[in-house]
Amino acid sequence: MDPPVQYGFYPVIQSSEKPERTLVPVKALDPSIRETVVWLRGRVHAIRAKGKQCFFVLRQQQYTIQCLLSVSETVDKSMLKFVSSISRESLVDIEGLVKKAPKPVESCTQTDVEIQVLKVFVVSESESRLPLQIEDASRPEGGDESGPDIGVNQDTRLDNRVLDLRTPTNLAIFRLESGVCQLFREALIKEEFIEIHTPKIIATASEGGANVFEVSYFKGKAYLAQSPQLYKQMAVAADFDRVFTIGAVFRAEDSNTHRHMTEFVGLDLEMAFCYHYHEVLDVLDRLFVSIFKGLSIQYKEEIEIIRRQYPSEPFKFLEPSLRLDFPEVVAMLREAGVEMDDEEDLTTANEKLLGKLVKAKYDTDFFIVDKFPYKVRPFYTMPDPTNNKYSNSYDFFMRGEEIMSGAQRIHDPKLLIEKIKEHEIDPAKLQSYIDAFRYGCSPHAGGGIGLERVTMLFLGLDNIRKVSLFPRDPKRLTP
Amino acid sequence: MDPPVQYGFYPVIQSSEKPERTLVPVKALDPSIRETVVWLRGRVHAIRAKGKQCFFVLRQQQYTIQCLLSVSETVDKSMLKFVSSISRESLVDIEGLVKKAPKPVESCTQTDVEIQVLKVFVVSESESRLPLQIEDASRPEGGDESGPDIGVNQDTRLDNRVLDLRTPTNLAIFRLESGVCQLFREALIKEEFIEIHTPKIIATASEGGANVFEVSYFKGKAYLAQSPQLYKQMAVAADFDRVFTIGAVFRAEDSNTHRHMTEFVGLDLEMAFCYHYHEVLDVLDRLFVSIFKGLSIQYKEEIEIIRRQYPSEPFKFLEPSLRLDFPEVVAMLREAGVEMDDEEDLTTANEKLLGKLVKAKYDTDFFIVDKFPYKVRPFYTMPDPTNNKYSNSYDFFMRGEEIMSGAQRIHDPKLLIEKIKEHEIDPAKLQSYIDAFRYGCSPHAGGGIGLERVTMLFLGLDNIRKVSLFPRDPKRLTP
Repeated sequence: MDPPVQYGFYPVIQSSEKPERTLVPVKALDPSIRETVVWLRGRVHAIRAKGKQCFFVLRQQQYTIQCLLSVSETVDKSMLKFVSSISRESLVDIEGLVKKAPKPVESCTQTDVEIQVLKVFVVSESESRLPLQIEDASRPEGGDESGPDIGVNQDTRLDNRVLDLRTPTNLAIFRLESGVCQLFREALIKEEFIEIHTPKIIATASEGGANVFEVSYFKGKAYLAQSPQLYKQMAVAADFDRVFTIGAVFRAEDSNTHRHMTEFVGLDLEMAFCYHYHEVLDVLDRLFVSIFKGLSIQYKEEIEIIRRQYPSEPFKFLEPSLRLDFPEVVAMLREAGVEMDDEEDLTTANEKLLGKLVKAKYDTDFFIVDKFPYKVRPFYTMPDPTNNKYSNSYDFFMRGEEIMSGAQRIHDPKLLIEKIKEHEIDPAKLQSYIDAFRYGCSPHAGGGIGLERVTMLFLGLDNIRKVSLFPRDPKRLTP
Repeated sequence: MDPPVQYGFYPVIQSSEKPERTLVPVKALDPSIRETVVWLRGRVHAIRAKGKQCFFVLRQQQYTIQCLLSVSETVDKSMLKFVSSISRESLVDIEGLVKKAPKPVESCTQTDVEIQVLKVFVVSESESRLPLQIEDASRPEGGDESGPDIGVNQDTRLDNRVLDLRTPTNLAIFRLESGVCQLFREALIKEEFIEIHTPKIIATASEGGANVFEVSYFKGKAYLAQSPQLYKQMAVAADFDRVFTIGAVFRAEDSNTHRHMTEFVGLDLEMAFCYHYHEVLDVLDRLFVSIFKGLSIQYKEEIEIIRRQYPSEPFKFLEPSLRLDFPEVVAMLREAGVEMDDEEDLTTANEKLLGKLVKAKYDTDFFIVDKFPYKVRPFYTMPDPTNNKYSNSYDFFMRGEEIMSGAQRIHDPKLLIEKIKEHEIDPAKLQSYIDAFRYGCSPHAGGGIGLERVTMLFLGLDNIRKVSLFPRDPKRLTP
């Protein structure tokens, strides 16, 4: 018996042929090409047989179209039976006739057209039992009109991340996140920054030694870099002047919160300035405004898709951004009833409250706090020239959470050694870093941005794991 | 006594003032602004006092200008003494009058103008003894006309990398390398790829378990990813369709060669295709051609600077690129006297020879070898459909060295488990990877490119450490 020519399983596609066939993208289908025959590839999203008919929804990323197979002169019952039995999430090739839909197809993104199916071949079969349902994983949080909240919990999602990522929301989140990186680079390349790559494996635990992962390195030991901090500064000392780097950053903190991971992506930059670190702060301010503008314009569709599942208020920002000095912030918090010292760092709760106070007063979700207390900042932070209780350092906030920390750095080796000792760190452990400043170095400042935090807070999401492809925390190393 | 107002040391620039002063870039100086007074900031590159005059060369990255200070009505002897004593590599601010040079200044990049110095302030002082001389580190290899080869050896360079990086050649190398990344991304974004970030800390040693670094992970153990391979494939299984990622890649190989490092930068991509992996090979082919073209055009000046110190032949490539099947390559090598089996991998020596044979025959430094023997490739490689001695896999070569390896991957979980077992790997260790293919997956192919190898070979350099900012090898973890 000949193999069926209208339906069946393809053998594993092993590149044995190069057919002339063109696969039409689902999003390109519209009534202008009605009555033409097309080939499509997509996943069987939903399927329902009814008498001599079978309806199924074909999904291609966030786009869906209704397909209809009816027993007729050219379609026999065995074909209907075969198609009805295809498991959801299987990848199929379909040949079909584009039809104008008799009435709008509410359940699909393609509402004006449907496909009258002629041929169906399974390209890659899915197991029939799914650990999570794409439809459940796509439901708005807190339930929608159609019923109670039967969403999928976070661990089930992350345990089955490949399936979970197929929801329109997740695909949109990661398209937008890739946009953050691209907008970051575009803005900095325009300002004559160059991209560098700094080592992740380092000889001694930088920044004091806490919270680092240890690596077996041949017969010795090494550590994973907590940031590219020291190396981007060394690039400035090497006359690179303006550098940025995007890469993995590691923190061995046993923090199990909505905003901590043990591995995340750092968007880092460092820049020589002439006389005042506000030259750098201005660049950073422009950088963020250009990222927010770019996201709002270029990723409008993605933002809409994401908000349907995870509702949030549009992200508001000013141009130029709001800047507050630390003492102003302390005054605002005290006025709201918070008791705190002048030189105390902002707690997470106080950051949140500050975000609300600022939003109420200035109507912005983004702001800069300058002039942090000296004693809450790392050893390499330049003290304020007029009041040594403060420092030339700043944090940037989105919706009341810190997303970037930065400062003018100490570029003078004598002052640096003095501060390293004050912080009770052994200068010998930072020798090659200190050496970088022995042969003259431009004054410089910079900052480190958490990619996932920017994405999470721009979208008003509640957990950083939603914006990490394969998140890592103290309890999760897989998939 | 008042501080000198014409010369002296600035205090450490701590952002105490925001002067209106504009610093003019050295490269912007030309005779059109002669007789104007400008402020410049740069390093004292060379200095020489002679009677009542002092000459010095001011350097700003690769640009240099001659400065002249003469005792006069406004300049006293003590100023001359002060300036003469400034150590080389110190960063200084100069106020001076732009003068048309009486004769071309051969020793500087600015040959038509010089500066008559009015004021000099040291911004950041260098120690007077330098571990290497920038001039020595900038000399053409093998000696130049002016004398014997008194270059700086590799270890001295790397031990003092911040100083070494200040040479015009090194600054140009890293500008060009940042261009490789940007051109890679631009080409792929045009082809609708999105950027992802894959975890570097992984639960089990992928790809068999050899050559991985172990990490202490809280109370357990983890490993550093040898490539983003498994994760970029999982992104394809999650319907991302076309992804790229740039990030650190770790190899615990005790290889001390000119082209191995324990940490390097991987430019990785993975792409779903319709029927044949050559759809992906075509994208890769276009990608490289567009990188090579972009470098040749946008980094012409950098390439010239680098060639002055490290002479090399211009990099030649064809469009589309030359493609050879493995059996053709074996035939070429045999004809040249090499004895090898049909299914034997290319040794480093044979790769080099092949590069020469191809260059002689086809006049290209870049070519693709398709259809590698099945048994020399990793477990996830798709076998050739017609001859199971071969596979749907390819390597890309530049000047006779491999810079990218890639293949169609096995997207069928049954076949994948079969091949994992054949390779004597425990499937349990790859469970979450295998799971990724259980719910339907597009056929896909991709590749992993070594950023540093591409840069090294495009420029015809002899050691990968020359193109790594802070290289890591079994013997080097600092700076």
